[in-house]
Amino acid sequence: MTASSAPTAAVLLIGNELLSGKTQDANLQFLGTELSALGIRLMEARVVRDDHEAIAAHLNELRALYTYVFTTGGIGPTHDDITAESIARAFGTELEVNAEAVERLKRGNPELNDARLRMARVPIGSALIDNPLSMAPGFHIENVFVLAGIPAIARSMFGTIATQLTPGAAIVSATVDVLAREGDFADALDSIARRHTGVEIGSYPFSREGRFGASLVVRGTDRDEIDAAVTEIVRVMGERGAEPRLVD
Amino acid sequence: MTASSAPTAAVLLIGNELLSGKTQDANLQFLGTELSALGIRLMEARVVRDDHEAIAAHLNELRALYTYVFTTGGIGPTHDDITAESIARAFGTELEVNAEAVERLKRGNPELNDARLRMARVPIGSALIDNPLSMAPGFHIENVFVLAGIPAIARSMFGTIATQLTPGAAIVSATVDVLAREGDFADALDSIARRHTGVEIGSYPFSREGRFGASLVVRGTDRDEIDAAVTEIVRVMGERGAEPRLVD
Repeated sequence: MTASSAPTAAVLLIGNELLSGKTQDANLQFLGTELSALGIRLMEARVVRDDHEAIAAHLNELRALYTYVFTTGGIGPTHDDITAESIARAFGTELEVNAEAVERLKRGNPELNDARLRMARVPIGSALIDNPLSMAPGFHIENVFVLAGIPAIARSMFGTIATQLTPGAAIVSATVDVLAREGDFADALDSIARRHTGVEIGSYPFSREGRFGASLVVRGTDRDEIDAAVTEIVRVMGERGAEPRLVD
Repeated sequence: MTASSAPTAAVLLIGNELLSGKTQDANLQFLGTELSALGIRLMEARVVRDDHEAIAAHLNELRALYTYVFTTGGIGPTHDDITAESIARAFGTELEVNAEAVERLKRGNPELNDARLRMARVPIGSALIDNPLSMAPGFHIENVFVLAGIPAIARSMFGTIATQLTPGAAIVSATVDVLAREGDFADALDSIARRHTGVEIGSYPFSREGRFGASLVVRGTDRDEIDAAVTEIVRVMGERGAEPRLVD
């Protein structure tokens, strides 16, 4: 396990389309990968509807529990984009028109109508998050970072804030693929996991070309501890004829 | 909006790999689509780590709030498969070896070792969920349905329980694609949404072949109300030169 003082995070994915089946989320995996690299433990994620009360309630729970909260979605100009309003409600504050956001939106499209102006309204006390791909900014208030839902824009926004986050010890991993059914090696893997409590060991079954196997992933912040667990996995799985192979 | 008496659901996706960035979830979109077809409103989803306390706490919140809860992941034979134990804890009960599950596991693999036997342990009071693809069953206790994490198996398990769920009025949708930026039509769409309160209207921007546009999705349970909203969207967007096109 990483130290209990390691920074933590939660992700709040906002949008009816993620729950109706219309849209496949593509932001959680990206954020999980980036946060791991920064040594920030992503503890949970929630997917919520476009509903002011629901967004505000979940946000207030999450921001009290974790070092950082990242939201995606709902910051466009249409009637169903209610993230900024909901976050203002969660913080007990109001929206205000941000002058810098107005300037940026004008650069993107000089014809700044009322709908586009909605995208310049952020909760009082927020700082803007740059949007390198289009002009409409995200925003950041206390420990909450509000990103766009469109994956390319969410990624580019995250790139601009990554240096503002306090990193922990980077979480690294090693993966050993074995060719055996999980039920054939689970006892041995359990023993190994009990002896290597400084790392997390996960087993993810697969079927490839008609053979069953599993990816055994060892994660942690101490490369020596990871190497020690991997060495034991490779030795024990080799003895069991499970053809262990270090894949990364 | 659908009637407030419509059945509701939440999804609890269990597994460190979904939060570390290792694995892209492929179950939420499937469940959202299937539940919509059954007229069951998926209200929220949560993604949690392999942690007994976290799983039990989230499960207890969700099962009290919604008609149904569906979990995925953590029901295999390895040490990190702790879903059954966690759900027993949430219900304040114990695991017991289910004789029928033992029979099924034996049919799958006559060499039933201790690790495989773990997959036959379900919380007291559970009924098994059939697994048409491999032998290890899921289980169902009160309003909670526990499915495998592997998408093909989760899907086949859901197929066996769908008829046990009490359906609501099927949620159907129609989509109109427009070729304009959201900021150019958001005012008109807002007016339409305010006049058609019996449906939900979502706007999902896209960029295709260098042109910006949006999919306007109208969802509801009353086909006439959906048609009325779609007719107005097509008319108004046509007047704006946004080239509306009914795509499904």
